[in-house]
Amino acid sequence: MCELSFYNEMIYWGLEGAHLEYCCQRRLDDRMSDTYTFYSADEPGREEPRAGGAEAAPSRRWLERMRLTFEEPTSSLAAQILASVSVVFVIVSMVVLCASTLPDWRAAAADNRSLDDRSRIIEAICIGWFTAECIVRFIISKNKCEFVKRPLNIIDLLAITPYYISVLMTVFTGENSQLQRAGVTLRVLRMMRIFWVIKLARHFIGLQTLGLTLKRCYREMVMLLVFICVAMAIFSALSQLLEHGLDLEASNKDFASIPAACWWVIISMTTVGYGDMYPITMPGRILGGVCVVSGIVLLALPITFIYHSFVQCYHELKFRSARYSRSLSTEFLN
Amino acid sequence: MCELSFYNEMIYWGLEGAHLEYCCQRRLDDRMSDTYTFYSADEPGREEPRAGGAEAAPSRRWLERMRLTFEEPTSSLAAQILASVSVVFVIVSMVVLCASTLPDWRAAAADNRSLDDRSRIIEAICIGWFTAECIVRFIISKNKCEFVKRPLNIIDLLAITPYYISVLMTVFTGENSQLQRAGVTLRVLRMMRIFWVIKLARHFIGLQTLGLTLKRCYREMVMLLVFICVAMAIFSALSQLLEHGLDLEASNKDFASIPAACWWVIISMTTVGYGDMYPITMPGRILGGVCVVSGIVLLALPITFIYHSFVQCYHELKFRSARYSRSLSTEFLN
Amino acid sequence: MCELSFYNEMIYWGLEGAHLEYCCQRRLDDRMSDTYTFYSADEPGREEPRAGGAEAAPSRRWLERMRLTFEEPTSSLAAQILASVSVVFVIVSMVVLCASTLPDWRAAAADNRSLDDRSRIIEAICIGWFTAECIVRFIISKNKCEFVKRPLNIIDLLAITPYYISVLMTVFTGENSQLQRAGVTLRVLRMMRIFWVIKLARHFIGLQTLGLTLKRCYREMVMLLVFICVAMAIFSALSQLLEHGLDLEASNKDFASIPAACWWVIISMTTVGYGDMYPITMPGRILGGVCVVSGIVLLALPITFIYHSFVQCYHELKFRSARYSRSLSTEFLN
Amino acid sequence: MCELSFYNEMIYWGLEGAHLEYCCQRRLDDRMSDTYTFYSADEPGREEPRAGGAEAAPSRRWLERMRLTFEEPTSSLAAQILASVSVVFVIVSMVVLCASTLPDWRAAAADNRSLDDRSRIIEAICIGWFTAECIVRFIISKNKCEFVKRPLNIIDLLAITPYYISVLMTVFTGENSQLQRAGVTLRVLRMMRIFWVIKLARHFIGLQTLGLTLKRCYREMVMLLVFICVAMAIFSALSQLLEHGLDLEASNKDFASIPAACWWVIISMTTVGYGDMYPITMPGRILGGVCVVSGIVLLALPITFIYHSFVQCYHELKFRSARYSRSLSTEFLN
Repeated sequence: MCELSFYNEMIYWGLEGAHLEYCCQRRLDDRMSDTYTFYSADEPGREEPRAGGAEAAPSRRWLERMRLTFEEPTSSLAAQILASVSVVFVIVSMVVLCASTLPDWRAAAADNRSLDDRSRIIEAICIGWFTAECIVRFIISKNKCEFVKRPLNIIDLLAITPYYISVLMTVFTGENSQLQRAGVTLRVLRMMRIFWVIKLARHFIGLQTLGLTLKRCYREMVMLLVFICVAMAIFSALSQLLEHGLDLEASNKDFASIPAACWWVIISMTTVGYGDMYPITMPGRILGGVCVVSGIVLLALPITFIYHSFVQCYHELKFRSARYSRSLSTEFLN
Repeated sequence: MCELSFYNEMIYWGLEGAHLEYCCQRRLDDRMSDTYTFYSADEPGREEPRAGGAEAAPSRRWLERMRLTFEEPTSSLAAQILASVSVVFVIVSMVVLCASTLPDWRAAAADNRSLDDRSRIIEAICIGWFTAECIVRFIISKNKCEFVKRPLNIIDLLAITPYYISVLMTVFTGENSQLQRAGVTLRVLRMMRIFWVIKLARHFIGLQTLGLTLKRCYREMVMLLVFICVAMAIFSALSQLLEHGLDLEASNKDFASIPAACWWVIISMTTVGYGDMYPITMPGRILGGVCVVSGIVLLALPITFIYHSFVQCYHELKFRSARYSRSLSTEFLN
Repeated sequence: MCELSFYNEMIYWGLEGAHLEYCCQRRLDDRMSDTYTFYSADEPGREEPRAGGAEAAPSRRWLERMRLTFEEPTSSLAAQILASVSVVFVIVSMVVLCASTLPDWRAAAADNRSLDDRSRIIEAICIGWFTAECIVRFIISKNKCEFVKRPLNIIDLLAITPYYISVLMTVFTGENSQLQRAGVTLRVLRMMRIFWVIKLARHFIGLQTLGLTLKRCYREMVMLLVFICVAMAIFSALSQLLEHGLDLEASNKDFASIPAACWWVIISMTTVGYGDMYPITMPGRILGGVCVVSGIVLLALPITFIYHSFVQCYHELKFRSARYSRSLSTEFLN
Repeated sequence: MCELSFYNEMIYWGLEGAHLEYCCQRRLDDRMSDTYTFYSADEPGREEPRAGGAEAAPSRRWLERMRLTFEEPTSSLAAQILASVSVVFVIVSMVVLCASTLPDWRAAAADNRSLDDRSRIIEAICIGWFTAECIVRFIISKNKCEFVKRPLNIIDLLAITPYYISVLMTVFTGENSQLQRAGVTLRVLRMMRIFWVIKLARHFIGLQTLGLTLKRCYREMVMLLVFICVAMAIFSALSQLLEHGLDLEASNKDFASIPAACWWVIISMTTVGYGDMYPITMPGRILGGVCVVSGIVLLALPITFIYHSFVQCYHELKFRSARYSRSLSTEFLN
């Protein structure tokens, strides 16, 4: 009990978990998830139906376990295996996608048809698995409507659909492989496959934390965007004026237009500095220095807000994850 | 009440709002603005005349609502529409300004006069709106003298004036468009239009926070400037000596003078590194490494002060903004 | 006593040592190590046998002192000398390794055989010292099995072995120096010598802290890796599509394949920006800006976790180091 | 009184000043300096002789005021004027030094002897002022021995001496201006003048804070240095092996030796990335990515320690500065 009161005390005194001594924090986390598990069994509402239903109908209980297996990678051994298989399929499909753009691979594929065919079969297997996983998840979901609205499921759908569209297009336009390679639409659809990596978010707490942080920090994201846009507008116009506008003859052609100068501003403010464009006049260089220093200051400010939110989201998700893995283990024991 | 005492306690214990748990902080913010609104109705001074005046004269009350509509974008629906229109006009004028510097656009405008005319009409409409907004705001302001001294209004004036000056210049120098294009003065005046983006600060709390932070942190800004100047002086002189001065024959021509070396120092200290200049001798490279590392350390130090001030300013402005939007809604209800 | 209770209080209130005023923190550190020393004499377990053994057998006591001399550089004057000699040998061997790759040195060595021989002798002395140190440390270790499993000892072994393998290879392949130079295997084995610098970790608390932080933060390291990989996959595929895939004729050859684009993504996300590759189309540049800004945000998030752990590890290791140096000095007095 | 107890409470609870709300912190600073001033009059030791001596001998009191005028720029109007004059002289001498390296200036000076003469006269006046200031400060110092040991005074001496040496050299080698220009020694001595900017540290609290931070953080500086050196050793050796050693024919000539690779490592780890060297092989690029990411992590870790110390030093110096300015003003009143 005293952990909860300590936690309340912490909240009351406005202290973050991150300020705790490391070992102490870990102990607190462990105990918090224990108590959370303990209370979650008794608490009414979302958890109650599950417990009640489990006693009433074995089929519901099986469904519930199935659901946990698919949605919570840490909840059981089967869930972990399922998650690992998904991760492996994602990685394999990514490797095939990367390899298929390599010049050597394309030369080899042109010579040897079987190589091309093999990569297609791997793609088909991956997409088959993802589709099956998606459908099973939809069938066993408690609330179909809510399921459709969850962002990760929308991403799943968006990542799978392009494959079927491109298959359909290939079927209808015939097997003229040369024409189909040249088609920009097919290349775009093919590249959409890259969003399969977002499926990893189901299995890595870090990516979930990132997603939750982005959702909560949309205000700070907008602030970051506004800062960058305003700074880009001012600095790009001034640099275009100083480097090009003041002396049209002896001017720096790189800074001929404001959109071109915008590219220089964003690359300088973020301290990347490719070196494809740089000011050459004295006033342009002074402006460049001011631009770089203000970029460092401007970008650091909203990021700190995002960081605080990230720490908070991480601790919340760790609690939630620990709770699921424990609640199931206690279920098995009873 | 307990929120205020909690807040006092927080101040007493020297805790920032940023240290609070996220959800807790949001709740505190909400309650703070509630209590703020509650007390602001009773508090004498600046708020009193408004409440008193509203009962006495309907015209004054109308003026007061007008003022809030123009000054506080979150205070009512009308204010939000007005703010959105202003933002749209700023964005449109920025897009036109950017487009007008594109080579393609200029070629098209040379061929087709109507394109040029259309962009001028858009500019005229934008400037007309800004002028009207500025005048209305001046007329309904309570204290004309204070109004003139507010930095955002000064910026408004500085952003609008150049347009009229350039119009006047065009009128007096005649319609010789070629000559007028070539005029550096006109190009400079035209580019002054970029400062219209600062008008966005009225409508984005992030930009206001930035402005307030810059005002409060002028001491830290000076510190940052002094650090950069001192480091630039020392490193540029040493790099010029090591790369050029020690061996005039085999020297690196990029580092021929100290001002040229200054450009290298600022680009290296901020870790931009365009690659237009870099040391090639062994001692110059060792100095370069020292310069870069000290640049990272030097720039990080004053920025952290600025960051703390920024967090504080952000919370203050959020309270203030929430108070206005609430105080008006309670007024409507009563 | 009150220091301990203060420390408990600090832990209870979730405050880091880093939040203390500087002078205060130093005082706390000093007192903490005093009390730690005081209690460590009385505490049973790991410390007990040492104290007991010291009374029983002088040889054991000598062994114990020997052990401290080798394992704790701050424990006595002899230990400090030993540590300094080790550090000097590491630095000398590193300098020889660096120098041997210089073109001037290789030219001089080709002309003058004695220079080459001298550097070999220096290497042999260094490796002899390291081997001797390693063996002595193994002999005097209390628990041979635990000794073998300690990471620093494994690194020692991995750093020493390649030298003997390369000596054996040279002996068996004969003294045909030309052939042996050309051998890639020998060059790889030779370069393994660079891991000798990790031996410095025994003597610098900073490197130990780093090692301990890496061990504790493997979870955050994985998070950082996952973030980078996911971002690389998405941005490299999109940039390859935008810069190369959309228009195969007018395309940027640098972005021909996804692995090539990956190099651009990592160099941009970390704001290095060599300038060997950069986007040239408008959509590619917009993607580049997004990539850089998200890189700054993504990398900053997990690093802050690592930093908190680092601060904690540093304080723990400072306490431990102070305790050893004090416990020995009190032993000398008694 | 309650401010002091509050301050003690803060120390007791391990809270930094930086965690206070902004306005609150400023109020605390003000009150702290008040109380500090109040107590400093009564406290025995270092402050006592001054107060006692002031009553006893008017000459001593005059000396004391003189000392404050020279050492504490904020203590009186005269001190501020003196400080401003010093700052102006430093800036003027820096501008002359920078200008003298410009090719245009050197061409103009070759044509027009009077320009060269004028810059020499400015230099002579500046050095005269600095010498006079230094001597006066030495004469009025209370403890000559302590004065000589203070780092700022040592820097003064080091900055002034080279001028006299170069004057002596010019006198002895005759007025053969051509020869004297060519002399490397003279150019080095001339460039030593750049250290005059460190004199600004007397007048800017930011630079003093920096100096104090460097003094206190030498341990963290060493840690930073060790981290950089170890990482440089490992990454430069590996990159040399991967880019050059594995395949001597098709190798990247930029990475021919370890010292050359060191330059690449430091420029990559600090995310500068000039682009003069970059890996071109696949394993070299993977190593490059690892090197950059570990550079970001490694550099961030010790810098945070330095930052905490900097905040603390800043507050200490602000208190001290406020105390001097106030103690004098109360003296004037009494």
